[in-house]
Amino acid sequence: MTKIFVNIGLSLDGYMAPEGMDIAHWGTPDHKNWGAKWGTLMSWVLKQQYFRELLKFGPGGETGEVNDMLRHTLERSGANIMGKRMFDQGAISWPEEAPFHTPVYVLTHEKREPWVRPGGTTFYFVNDGPESALEQARASAGDRDIRISGGADVVQQYLSMGVVDELEIALAPILFGGGQRLFASPQNSVPQFRIDKVLHTPDVTHLRYVRA
Amino acid sequence: MTKIFVNIGLSLDGYMAPEGMDIAHWGTPDHKNWGAKWGTLMSWVLKQQYFRELLKFGPGGETGEVNDMLRHTLERSGANIMGKRMFDQGAISWPEEAPFHTPVYVLTHEKREPWVRPGGTTFYFVNDGPESALEQARASAGDRDIRISGGADVVQQYLSMGVVDELEIALAPILFGGGQRLFASPQNSVPQFRIDKVLHTPDVTHLRYVRA
Repeated sequence: MTKIFVNIGLSLDGYMAPEGMDIAHWGTPDHKNWGAKWGTLMSWVLKQQYFRELLKFGPGGETGEVNDMLRHTLERSGANIMGKRMFDQGAISWPEEAPFHTPVYVLTHEKREPWVRPGGTTFYFVNDGPESALEQARASAGDRDIRISGGADVVQQYLSMGVVDELEIALAPILFGGGQRLFASPQNSVPQFRIDKVLHTPDVTHLRYVRA
Repeated sequence: MTKIFVNIGLSLDGYMAPEGMDIAHWGTPDHKNWGAKWGTLMSWVLKQQYFRELLKFGPGGETGEVNDMLRHTLERSGANIMGKRMFDQGAISWPEEAPFHTPVYVLTHEKREPWVRPGGTTFYFVNDGPESALEQARASAGDRDIRISGGADVVQQYLSMGVVDELEIALAPILFGGGQRLFASPQNSVPQFRIDKVLHTPDVTHLRYVRA
């Protein structure tokens, strides 16, 4: 059965991205500030062999339980759903062979033809909301799972819809002091989770929750 | 050397207390709503032998690593600092022998004489700010440590002052959907921590961070 899952990095103060992190600020002096924070949040993943291979960073990197977990996350995914801001930042930083190898449904008001990348990633631009994106993702995922990739507002939207089966958080000890909060707005109805697995490393604590 | 530490329970969405949890709502129908959430956040602690003993709940309870950690937290504390809202709620729920056994400095605008409880807890009402409370706590803690007890605004205040050496969080899988956020307001300058220890249990993940 297809599971819908979230797998994200989070700062200890609850932010998915530091303040000012958007393409308008790439290459500006402000980039250095949020770039360093983002780098710290993501440092654990940048070291992994599978991620280096996926992002075409070249050979080397750590292998082991964390690397296996990363590989599993990518291999279980039959479709991805993401927001426009995440797509925009990825589009100028991913290698030509985008690191998804699945259909990716981008929630946006922009009308645009599908963007086919080598290696099996095709971006579809969905204008009629998160339910529609989920339906399309289900149709294309087959037996595999659907990853809600980000950003924070998209994750919160699907959490509020009550459709998220698994919530995987790599909690980094860094405090951002501001930015894109995962749980930004008060919610009347919230799904409940239980702890399924915790994997701790010196860099980050991998917390896996499943729907209670 | 005296350490300044925070040891709190936190919901997965970053709240220290659920929406509506204040003494104005004790005994109202709303109490049931936030009371259940608070109970879930705190369920792990209510089971522990040492806590049951401390709160005069009677004999029984779990022993083991979590219980030892609880005992250590209480025994290392030579002084506590808390906000007025936490004090007000405690004053109507703690047993006569309040569960601190140290001087407790309560940040408040209210002028009030010290309130001496049996068993070594005396509440002092501090009207001239968090620095003054910390100075008084240092003077009375001796070789022991100072606990910033809560609530969320008081913890954030001391974090912003850069004086917190250790941050211990019992992260519960519950989502509150709203309430008193630990990291409520954006901060320009934030201290940095590193992971010191993680202890995981089915109920809650005990995360211990120390200043980097």
